[in-house]
Amino acid sequence: MDDGAGLEELEAGECLALLRSLSVGRVAVNRADLPPLVVPVNYVMHGEALFFRTEPGTKFDALLREPVSFQVDSIDPIHRTGWSVLIAGAAVPVTRGGDLDGEEVVIESWVVDTHEHHLVRLMPTNMTGRRIRLPEIVVDSRGYL
Amino acid sequence: MDDGAGLEELEAGECLALLRSLSVGRVAVNRADLPPLVVPVNYVMHGEALFFRTEPGTKFDALLREPVSFQVDSIDPIHRTGWSVLIAGAAVPVTRGGDLDGEEVVIESWVVDTHEHHLVRLMPTNMTGRRIRLPEIVVDSRGYL
Repeated sequence: MDDGAGLEELEAGECLALLRSLSVGRVAVNRADLPPLVVPVNYVMHGEALFFRTEPGTKFDALLREPVSFQVDSIDPIHRTGWSVLIAGAAVPVTRGGDLDGEEVVIESWVVDTHEHHLVRLMPTNMTGRRIRLPEIVVDSRGYL
Repeated sequence: MDDGAGLEELEAGECLALLRSLSVGRVAVNRADLPPLVVPVNYVMHGEALFFRTEPGTKFDALLREPVSFQVDSIDPIHRTGWSVLIAGAAVPVTRGGDLDGEEVVIESWVVDTHEHHLVRLMPTNMTGRRIRLPEIVVDSRGYL
C-alpha cells in the first residue's frame, strides 16, 4: 500500500524475508534520562525468532531489562530508496549449544562479562516494515538549504 | 583505545569525520509504552550540526518532543568490522531557505503535515563512537548454535 508520499507498508512475510537477507541490525532500548541506546549487532533468523550477539563491552544488561527494538534497513544512498523493518520484542539470553527451538536454552541467571559475546533471542511481538524513499537535502555553496 | 575485546573508542573528531562520510542514519526516540521508535533518515552535516529530513508519513512529532539519538554505522557484513557513532541531542525544526548557522532558521511553531518532508537540525550534546568487531553467530545444520 503506497500512500503516494514515499511510504509503502510491508506485510509480515516480506519483513521476515528481508530480515533473513541481512546479518547486521541495531538493537535500541529506552533510557530514563537519555535518548535511546542504539547498538549494532550481528544476527541470524531461525524461524520467526531472531538471535543476536552483542559486541564485547556492550552495556548488555540494559538490553534485557525491558522490551527492545530491533531495526534493520538497506538503503541505497544515491537513490535514497530501500526498506526498513522495526521489531519490538523481549530479549532473553540463551546459552551456546542449546536447541534454538527449545525453551530449555533460556537461562534464568547469567553472568555479565563485558568480554564475553552474549547471545540473545528476540521473539518479535510487533513487526512493521516499509519500503522507503528518502527526501534529498540540498545545501548550496553558501551553506543555505 | 582498544580493550582487547573488539571495542575501540573514537574521539569526537573521528566521529565527525565518519558522520560526514555517509548520508543515511537513524533517528531513535524513547517511547513510553513501547521500545524506541527507530527511523532511517537522510542527513547532511554542516559544521557540527546535523540536518536531517524525515520521510513523509513519519510520526514526526515524536521526534521533537524530547532529546533524540542519531545513529550511523558502516559495517562489513562479511568480516563484521566497521564503526558506529551515536549522538544525543535536541532536534529542532528548521525552515527551508534559512541560514544554517543562524538561529533565525528555528521556527517556534510549525504545521505537522504527514506528506511534507520535515527538515530538522540536531545539535549534538553528546557523541560517542566505536570501531567494532562483531562476533560471529554459527548455526549448524540441525539448528543448534
